[in-house]
Amino acid sequence: MTETNFSPKFEKGMSILSKRWTGLILFQLFKGKQRFCEIQSALPLSGRVLSERLKELEVEGIVKRKVFPEIPVRIEYSLTEKGRATLPIITATQNWSEEWILVE
Amino acid sequence: MTETNFSPKFEKGMSILSKRWTGLILFQLFKGKQRFCEIQSALPLSGRVLSERLKELEVEGIVKRKVFPEIPVRIEYSLTEKGRATLPIITATQNWSEEWILVE
Repeated sequence: MTETNFSPKFEKGMSILSKRWTGLILFQLFKGKQRFCEIQSALPLSGRVLSERLKELEVEGIVKRKVFPEIPVRIEYSLTEKGRATLPIITATQNWSEEWILVE
Repeated sequence: MTETNFSPKFEKGMSILSKRWTGLILFQLFKGKQRFCEIQSALPLSGRVLSERLKELEVEGIVKRKVFPEIPVRIEYSLTEKGRATLPIITATQNWSEEWILVE
């Protein structure tokens, strides 16, 4: 169980992207840069979890956080080049879901 | 926070595929039908978690479980058509990971 057949890059990539909500956060950010409250109002998750996910994505270089020193302070989130490069994954997941997922 | 901008199909599809290990299990099953122990030896996860994930994927119609009434009983797992249709997602994730993920 210590050796696996997978490329370590693939394994790490999968583990980053397959965290709950990460895909939907990326999808939302493809609409353009947004403030925390805008992302939150578009997604059914708590502020605590959103903040945790955004932090992880920032650490991985997928999301960029820009602080504007206004009063009150304005913070905008956007996708980096690495983040925008996930578009084919998000699109493929959308296509598959529309074709195969049944919802009541 | 109750309304979201997402298609319910996309939201459900994402939540199915973005469970930890699910992507790697699908990737492994693209190699062909396999017994539980074969999948397990290829993946760094416990038998309990693998069994849970396979059950969920079976319920969603993504994985097929076939029991051969031999002694001892033989059980094989394979992808259904719905499961095989995730190939573009897995491939896009592999490509992105190879291009963008750094591992030590």
